[in-house]
Amino acid sequence: MNKKEKYIIEVARRARQAALQLAAVSSKEKNRALVAMADALWQSRAAIIAANINDLENGKKKGLSEAMLDRLSLSEKRVKEMCDGLVHVSRLNDPVGEILWERKREDVLVIRKVRVPIGVIAVIYEARPNVTADSAGLCVKSGNAVILRGGSEAINSNMGVVEALNQGAVKAGLPADAVQLIRYTERELMLPLLRQNELIDLVIPRGGEGLIRYVAEHSTIPVIKHYKGICHVYVDKDADLAMAESIIVNAKVQRPAVCNALETLLIHKAVAPRFLPRIVDALKAKDVEVRCDAAGRRLVKGVKAATERDWSTEYLDLILSVRIVDDLDAAIGHINTYGSRHSDAIVTRNAAAAKKFMATVDSSAVFHNASTRLNDGGQFGFGAEIGISTDKIHARGPMGLEELTSYKYVVIGKGHIRK
Amino acid sequence: MNKKEKYIIEVARRARQAALQLAAVSSKEKNRALVAMADALWQSRAAIIAANINDLENGKKKGLSEAMLDRLSLSEKRVKEMCDGLVHVSRLNDPVGEILWERKREDVLVIRKVRVPIGVIAVIYEARPNVTADSAGLCVKSGNAVILRGGSEAINSNMGVVEALNQGAVKAGLPADAVQLIRYTERELMLPLLRQNELIDLVIPRGGEGLIRYVAEHSTIPVIKHYKGICHVYVDKDADLAMAESIIVNAKVQRPAVCNALETLLIHKAVAPRFLPRIVDALKAKDVEVRCDAAGRRLVKGVKAATERDWSTEYLDLILSVRIVDDLDAAIGHINTYGSRHSDAIVTRNAAAAKKFMATVDSSAVFHNASTRLNDGGQFGFGAEIGISTDKIHARGPMGLEELTSYKYVVIGKGHIRK
Repeated sequence: MNKKEKYIIEVARRARQAALQLAAVSSKEKNRALVAMADALWQSRAAIIAANINDLENGKKKGLSEAMLDRLSLSEKRVKEMCDGLVHVSRLNDPVGEILWERKREDVLVIRKVRVPIGVIAVIYEARPNVTADSAGLCVKSGNAVILRGGSEAINSNMGVVEALNQGAVKAGLPADAVQLIRYTERELMLPLLRQNELIDLVIPRGGEGLIRYVAEHSTIPVIKHYKGICHVYVDKDADLAMAESIIVNAKVQRPAVCNALETLLIHKAVAPRFLPRIVDALKAKDVEVRCDAAGRRLVKGVKAATERDWSTEYLDLILSVRIVDDLDAAIGHINTYGSRHSDAIVTRNAAAAKKFMATVDSSAVFHNASTRLNDGGQFGFGAEIGISTDKIHARGPMGLEELTSYKYVVIGKGHIRK
Repeated sequence: MNKKEKYIIEVARRARQAALQLAAVSSKEKNRALVAMADALWQSRAAIIAANINDLENGKKKGLSEAMLDRLSLSEKRVKEMCDGLVHVSRLNDPVGEILWERKREDVLVIRKVRVPIGVIAVIYEARPNVTADSAGLCVKSGNAVILRGGSEAINSNMGVVEALNQGAVKAGLPADAVQLIRYTERELMLPLLRQNELIDLVIPRGGEGLIRYVAEHSTIPVIKHYKGICHVYVDKDADLAMAESIIVNAKVQRPAVCNALETLLIHKAVAPRFLPRIVDALKAKDVEVRCDAAGRRLVKGVKAATERDWSTEYLDLILSVRIVDDLDAAIGHINTYGSRHSDAIVTRNAAAAKKFMATVDSSAVFHNASTRLNDGGQFGFGAEIGISTDKIHARGPMGLEELTSYKYVVIGKGHIRK
């Protein structure tokens, strides 16, 4: 084992010790710590912005795109947003300690299922340094120790942010290892981290599909993730077409580069002759490139062809693939075959069709007469979100504070034994 | 890819299709199917017992131990128990469809968190053929398609059981691939199964630590498991010593070969001089071999020495290691260091000590004045159990029907879009 690997195991060990302590910290103390972390972050803004300039210069030398550099960049305003985020989280309800279920047996044995922190959470992410503060805040609030592993592009910014967060946390009495950043960013050093299943309880990767697949492939620790969002809107034969147009334009155009944006539109063949020309016009007016299947191109001239490959493509851009389907079952079949189990919608006035769609489309969130863009922790009222899961184990859909908890059974007897 | 690997992927593909159908099957239909499965199993008992005799003969040739052969063996009585188990599960509440949370926003958007099946569950297990029927019953009830992968010792019995279960299920209208058995039992054929993360949603390994570690190491699918149960009782300085004796004897002796049996006893040094001789006598009377640390051996003569290795050993036998600790914190520290996060108990009349123990011992179930043997789905009132988890993701502690479910968000709008 080399020095860097030893260091990573030591980080995980410290995190485990911190987690055992954090589990018993009161909400009041955690909230005070979050505010102290925000204060320390704000006090350190000059140093953090200086470190960020360093990262930006390195990024320019490495030839990062303008979009990447923008995501990486920290202004005083962005530091303020991170601070506000921490204060906001300090005001949310603490999920820890909630009694989820309770039973008193006839022999007076009391069994309680109590919400507890998960323990140690590793968050692995790319460029944006705000993820550092956001993840730290959500983990501390939910009583978890966090190991942050950001990308090389943001290493100086992240070190500055974590140093400030630590100062605040320690000043408020939290264990010094509640929030730790991995200093080394070589990809191969992710491997020793991802093998610490005795010390780390959960890995949350946030970033591009490449990073997430790498983490999922190599981790012996449970991973909660989503690879991508290939989201669908299905316009049923009984759809309100004006509503359908509004939902589709919103889902495609309002923010095309995010995971809950629309990628494929399915239209029932009975309404396609009326609806397809209309929606193509509406989308073209918003600079969307439309790609249709053969049936669609018979209805509207001059649109590009969609191929088999389009059905599995997350464009994250102003491009939409369109397929004409024979009926509801064909729409459901398409989504369950090509979709990514993220967010899918039906537009219809037909209650039976809606019911069937909602029950059999196998996605984290299904929408009836609403935009897929609404699949979001903030929109659902969770107060904060650490990501969206398309997995089915533990957390599915937007992950807020509750999804960062586990539970334990607390059993209280009077000398009870097993008979 | 060879023929057997192709077969395994085909099994997973069929399971995924069956799961999509099963998600929409009503409780009534599932319950009827469970009863039909029990009927078919009972009708096939002669053929199953004949197949089992075949397995037993092969097992004898391979030199399986008497205990193994006993676990493998199926009598008419044991087939009847499997049938009764299926009928019992048919009478439990169906968790699917339960609304776990609901919110109506001011703009009348309705967001519901609804319990749904997980999808496809692979159960990987060893000798006992009753696991076949039990797992199939719990998975069908919770709307999941199941892939059963039993051991080579029981292959003929398992094929007989699954053939009968399938007959019953199909007769009652379930998809033919709701319950499938992997025909090949070579260990290396577990690998293609454990890599089908696009088709299989969860793996539950049941068996010895070797099997479970193999599965956890090689799976790209989420795994819920427990490796072992190194369970502790801590006798506090304020313990009722008669109660402590009763709990310890129960936890150690009532069924020593199971995961929630006691393996290490911790005694506060203040009560050790009074309590240790007494408990050693009580345990010796039950044929328990006691192994003490140095401090303990100064108090009681003629007991074996416990070494560092004993603290991490799951005896599954009439052996108990004993350590004298300085205080509550030392007891908690020992458990969080050497334990397996399974089941741990404190015996005390001191409420503050109990509270601290329950909050900071990081185990799936913690007990105050009660035996660790009570960590069990049946004891907790779950009606049925597919195993116990020491993980913190998704399910912790006894896993019943609810733990075999996930959820989805069902969002109902009136043309709602993201602003």
